[in-house]
Amino acid sequence: MIRMKNSEKKEEKNILGVTVTRKENFSQWYLEVVRKGGFKDQRTPVKGFDVILPWGYAIWERIQEITNKIFKQHGIQNCYFPMLFPEAFLKKEAEHFEGFKAEAVKVTEVGDEKLTEPLVIRPTSETIMYYMFSKWIRSYRDLPLKINQWCNVVRWDTKVTRPFIRDREFLWQELHTAHATREEALQQINEIIEMCKEIHYYLAMSAIPMRRTPSDTFPGAEFSVAFDTLVQDCKVFQGPGGHFLGQNFAKAFDITFIDEHGRKQYVWQTCLGMTTREIGGIIMQHGDDQGAVLPPLLAPIQFVIIPIPFKAREQLVLNKAKEIYSLISTYVRAHIDLRDYSPGFKFNDWELKGVPFRIEIGPKEAEQNKITIVRRDTGEKIELSVREITKEKLHALIKQMQNDMFERSKRFLETHIINTTEFDEIKENARKGIVRTNWCGSERCEEKINALGVEVRGTRFDKKEEPFDTCVVCGKKAKYVIYAARSY
Amino acid sequence: MIRMKNSEKKEEKNILGVTVTRKENFSQWYLEVVRKGGFKDQRTPVKGFDVILPWGYAIWERIQEITNKIFKQHGIQNCYFPMLFPEAFLKKEAEHFEGFKAEAVKVTEVGDEKLTEPLVIRPTSETIMYYMFSKWIRSYRDLPLKINQWCNVVRWDTKVTRPFIRDREFLWQELHTAHATREEALQQINEIIEMCKEIHYYLAMSAIPMRRTPSDTFPGAEFSVAFDTLVQDCKVFQGPGGHFLGQNFAKAFDITFIDEHGRKQYVWQTCLGMTTREIGGIIMQHGDDQGAVLPPLLAPIQFVIIPIPFKAREQLVLNKAKEIYSLISTYVRAHIDLRDYSPGFKFNDWELKGVPFRIEIGPKEAEQNKITIVRRDTGEKIELSVREITKEKLHALIKQMQNDMFERSKRFLETHIINTTEFDEIKENARKGIVRTNWCGSERCEEKINALGVEVRGTRFDKKEEPFDTCVVCGKKAKYVIYAARSY
Repeated sequence: MIRMKNSEKKEEKNILGVTVTRKENFSQWYLEVVRKGGFKDQRTPVKGFDVILPWGYAIWERIQEITNKIFKQHGIQNCYFPMLFPEAFLKKEAEHFEGFKAEAVKVTEVGDEKLTEPLVIRPTSETIMYYMFSKWIRSYRDLPLKINQWCNVVRWDTKVTRPFIRDREFLWQELHTAHATREEALQQINEIIEMCKEIHYYLAMSAIPMRRTPSDTFPGAEFSVAFDTLVQDCKVFQGPGGHFLGQNFAKAFDITFIDEHGRKQYVWQTCLGMTTREIGGIIMQHGDDQGAVLPPLLAPIQFVIIPIPFKAREQLVLNKAKEIYSLISTYVRAHIDLRDYSPGFKFNDWELKGVPFRIEIGPKEAEQNKITIVRRDTGEKIELSVREITKEKLHALIKQMQNDMFERSKRFLETHIINTTEFDEIKENARKGIVRTNWCGSERCEEKINALGVEVRGTRFDKKEEPFDTCVVCGKKAKYVIYAARSY
Repeated sequence: MIRMKNSEKKEEKNILGVTVTRKENFSQWYLEVVRKGGFKDQRTPVKGFDVILPWGYAIWERIQEITNKIFKQHGIQNCYFPMLFPEAFLKKEAEHFEGFKAEAVKVTEVGDEKLTEPLVIRPTSETIMYYMFSKWIRSYRDLPLKINQWCNVVRWDTKVTRPFIRDREFLWQELHTAHATREEALQQINEIIEMCKEIHYYLAMSAIPMRRTPSDTFPGAEFSVAFDTLVQDCKVFQGPGGHFLGQNFAKAFDITFIDEHGRKQYVWQTCLGMTTREIGGIIMQHGDDQGAVLPPLLAPIQFVIIPIPFKAREQLVLNKAKEIYSLISTYVRAHIDLRDYSPGFKFNDWELKGVPFRIEIGPKEAEQNKITIVRRDTGEKIELSVREITKEKLHALIKQMQNDMFERSKRFLETHIINTTEFDEIKENARKGIVRTNWCGSERCEEKINALGVEVRGTRFDKKEEPFDTCVVCGKKAKYVIYAARSY
């Protein structure tokens, strides 16, 4: 059943394989992996509104599963809020409106009729959610309130670039919390950081929580913390972002509660957003010249079984492959590829998709009752007799690869932070990694760095750092150690 | 910790309890269960765009989980398609456009700029999905293609009525399949019916797959089959609908493939949609005067544990409750209610929400090392010693209640089908159930029935029925046995 016609072989060849290496052209490599690996299809009628293909969507479902589990442990509940709300809502918090007005898509007509009031498609849901919060929250006993939703949002970015990285419609989760005191809300930010770290372990991504500078803070927030990872072309990739909203929205939406002493108070709020952009980050972080490499704890398929039939022994091989599939699929997320393609085509295809472990089963394996497992990231081959295939063994392989990938990511990040004291060296150093330097805190100096095409990422949120020199721009006394990098 | 202040007791009283019986006012009863049970909140700025509250959303997540599992067994893959597409797309299939043009929400502006081409928010995704299908499908080897997405859709219905039942924005799944032959596509419709039946068992809803009449067919389809359940006020509730699209869309979107003989052919298509409306159906089908009653295989929480502390023995009770929770939560979906409310408040609250089993633990239970389980639908009390709490025992309770609920639904449906041969009796009989009668097949006669405020639901898809009299309207020879009912 595995043989192919010549015309089909030709067709296969056209479909498969990345045509450039990462070194030759990282952007092109990324685009090809996304498309050929079955992550996304951009050939849609409206730019920035793409199709997330089954493999890409399965990864998103895994991210949802992992996140929901962590969120639940922290008392967070899922909800769904309306996608359309009056434009006037966006305007209630002035900075928030400034931040989103240009990107907000307006709905003005239904069928042939004009709407009396223009509605917007959510670019983010603070305003509609907090409108409801003000109805729900009455007493201190209603707090904390921790509400999350998974949904689509639309931001009409003029610069639509890479798929996943900058789309006009994307999927995300947005967590919104309300608390009785400033301290509790600040504690929630710490909890958000911890939850994000946990999620990042599943993604095998080492990331630094950066407190953004005031100019780069979420519109309407007091401060923002976002996770920066360094991907292979030495640009940083921004992951989930948590925002301390203070009482800005509480005042705009009149979200008050009666405290234990009978006094009326405004709530303190935080929020967190993580998007389908992560899928792009994972590809750029871990991929190799053959395609994506997925961390095994994340991968929708952890083990793919590929039968390698030889003449007259097709049935033997197929039976053994099915037997192995039955065995391992109770322990791990497994798949058996019975498609009418050649083994070579299948190898390429699953390499492109980044499945962590490939199990090849040919006549030799079938006769000797053993399997060969090939690890996607290292190419390492592990031979096991069928007797040795246990849940413990497979989980140990998974854990080992997950740890190895995470450690590689960590090492890469740590060894690519470049202490820089000269303004003239920023641009050059930012080609090789993340620039770590000193800053006086003035927006003027920040702008000068940004003008180099190197973005200021902020200060570390996870540890206090003392300046090791004067401000890299003006030479005056530095207040902060800041990080700067080229970025996605 | 469970005692309350007087002011809080008053507050509790205001929140809880349905104020009318189903008999007194079914609509009002439904609205109160939806709101007070934490299913939905309609106090949003735009009519028909509601909030799905945590409890309602958790049920939707369960429906997704159940459906995804069944879909996966049938080789269906999840994807995500753009929410916005050019209005011109809707127009490609003429009937489809006629069906949706009045309800399609148009996007014409972004920020302060006019778009060059108006976009629509998906009222359904045939057009954008099939545009992509035409790119993806090349050879017979690409078929069948079975793609599902979970998403929000917007239909600007002028009659926004009950929450869940008729909303302007709702969540749903839409499954779209493409096949090489008409026979395979027809077979897919049968598979859709089987999958829906399986899902309905989880909902404990007995439903009849009805082949809709031509006038009630999905815009662009050759024929439609939808599931009708009878709810407690003797109106039918329409559940999931499957549609045989023939080659209508394939021709409009040029979806062709090269068959095994090298000939170019149009594909044959089907689709299926199931929405958050189901949540409303479940409430109306199973609820009682105390609130919702959820089938245990569906319920997000199957067992809720409520500690009933008495003075000086609070800690004893609490410890026992936690011990029981640890024990059962490995077997079933369990929750322990440690909120600072009275046991009575909690009983009411979980009754409203419809949790299938309540476990009360007071000093007696703690001392005698036993529990009392109360079944939500029958009020039956089951006493178990802690030793008797096994996975098998709890699963047997779940299975028993699930079967009982499904059987009740089935019996209710079967005993409320009323054979009717006189036109004058249709309206009266439709007050008591589903009218089963005879029809010549003319649209004129169908319209006369519909004009009674009784909707023709079509013919049974699951069995062939021979007319038992002449056409109930014109008295001519009948071709079909049709069903008619008041409906949601």
